[in-house]
Amino acid sequence: MKQRGRRRQEPQRTGAAHAVIYGWHSALAALKNPRRRIHRVLATRNALGRLAEQDIADLPEAVEAREIERLVGMGAVHQGLAVVADPLPDLAIDDLRDAALVVVLDQVTDPHNVGAVLRSAAAFGAAALILTERHGPADSGVLAKAASGGLEHVALVRVPNLARALDQLGDLGFLRLGFDSDHSDPLESVEPDARTAIVLGAEGKGLRRLTREKCDRLVRLDAPGPIASLNVSNAAALALYIVTRRTA
Amino acid sequence: MKQRGRRRQEPQRTGAAHAVIYGWHSALAALKNPRRRIHRVLATRNALGRLAEQDIADLPEAVEAREIERLVGMGAVHQGLAVVADPLPDLAIDDLRDAALVVVLDQVTDPHNVGAVLRSAAAFGAAALILTERHGPADSGVLAKAASGGLEHVALVRVPNLARALDQLGDLGFLRLGFDSDHSDPLESVEPDARTAIVLGAEGKGLRRLTREKCDRLVRLDAPGPIASLNVSNAAALALYIVTRRTA
Repeated sequence: MKQRGRRRQEPQRTGAAHAVIYGWHSALAALKNPRRRIHRVLATRNALGRLAEQDIADLPEAVEAREIERLVGMGAVHQGLAVVADPLPDLAIDDLRDAALVVVLDQVTDPHNVGAVLRSAAAFGAAALILTERHGPADSGVLAKAASGGLEHVALVRVPNLARALDQLGDLGFLRLGFDSDHSDPLESVEPDARTAIVLGAEGKGLRRLTREKCDRLVRLDAPGPIASLNVSNAAALALYIVTRRTA
Repeated sequence: MKQRGRRRQEPQRTGAAHAVIYGWHSALAALKNPRRRIHRVLATRNALGRLAEQDIADLPEAVEAREIERLVGMGAVHQGLAVVADPLPDLAIDDLRDAALVVVLDQVTDPHNVGAVLRSAAAFGAAALILTERHGPADSGVLAKAASGGLEHVALVRVPNLARALDQLGDLGFLRLGFDSDHSDPLESVEPDARTAIVLGAEGKGLRRLTREKCDRLVRLDAPGPIASLNVSNAAALALYIVTRRTA
């Protein structure tokens, strides 16, 4: 392991302002992200061995698994590695002038789901995930773990007012596609656009009325089987696949 | 609510052989499944009101939320409704002679993931989800909840030996597509077949060697972004979408 020493900070206790990122893929992605300001790297003996094969700058502390558990919470699957870092700076809608693809979530609260959407957004090269400040996901650790490194590649944009954010996305030239199983056309029927915003609502509730009204098109994902609705992260993965295939 | 009284059993205590299915969608789907032998229906006052609009035969017991919590475990999102029922009979590979589409999971253990795959399998009309008896998902309640009713539409087939099951699927005429990110062709490059088995492995581990060898083709899902791997349930949803679109 190269130890270039850059970005190395004195160990600090975790404050409210720090992000704790755990799990092998998520923590390693954070360590490899030059935009991350790292404060501590906690690794079990086993994880230290695996880290030695990686090109990372930050010196890990060898700890017992229970010390990581104390930091991330009992039951969290940390896989022997946790990183304490500054959260990445949140972007604003205006920072998305050069983005081609973004995902917008309307009051999706389950951090597992939001993390899984973030991971798929990273897989399909989306630039940002736009969330409401209120009714957003609660637990950033669970989100980061489910995102499996996606947090390092996709900017989080938390907005106070989603309708206003959709207006701004429209001003920037995004085609805003609202996913709504009622009164809508199949996604495949929409003419592809160079810049697309995929707008998804929470399961059960769907998109709020104002969110629907701010979309350019309402579309649906067709599935031929006896259950019509998909989990929101599966719906996002399908939407991302279809949109990126058609604009490639 | 119609109360036809069919299938109604004397209330029983939950034994190990009973399935507890909770959460609105999952429990309601179980109540509407004529193949389910129902023992108890526990509903909060609020859920009773919603149940009154549904055409179900089984008489719910009005209970406090904490009684459901005692049954399903603290922290489980039961949404005021739980059903105690016999598990549906497991099928065998030989029962899949008329199936067009099945999903095979190679040692995927997380019940959230398996449940989400089951839900997508139901959405895309797959007939069965084939799992290994060992190294399969542990918690059937979590699985049923994540499946959101999918358990009522997609047969679970638990096999002692996955390689043998893949042989049998081959004998039944299924094209066995193994998903493997290395050394494989894009799924889109495979000639569609009327009968397809989608074979997916656990995250990180992927397909075991023998599982790979029993597949007719190894294929991959391409994603253009910086993270190559998808969550297994998202990969399953994409595979199901692509396969069903091409054979439609």
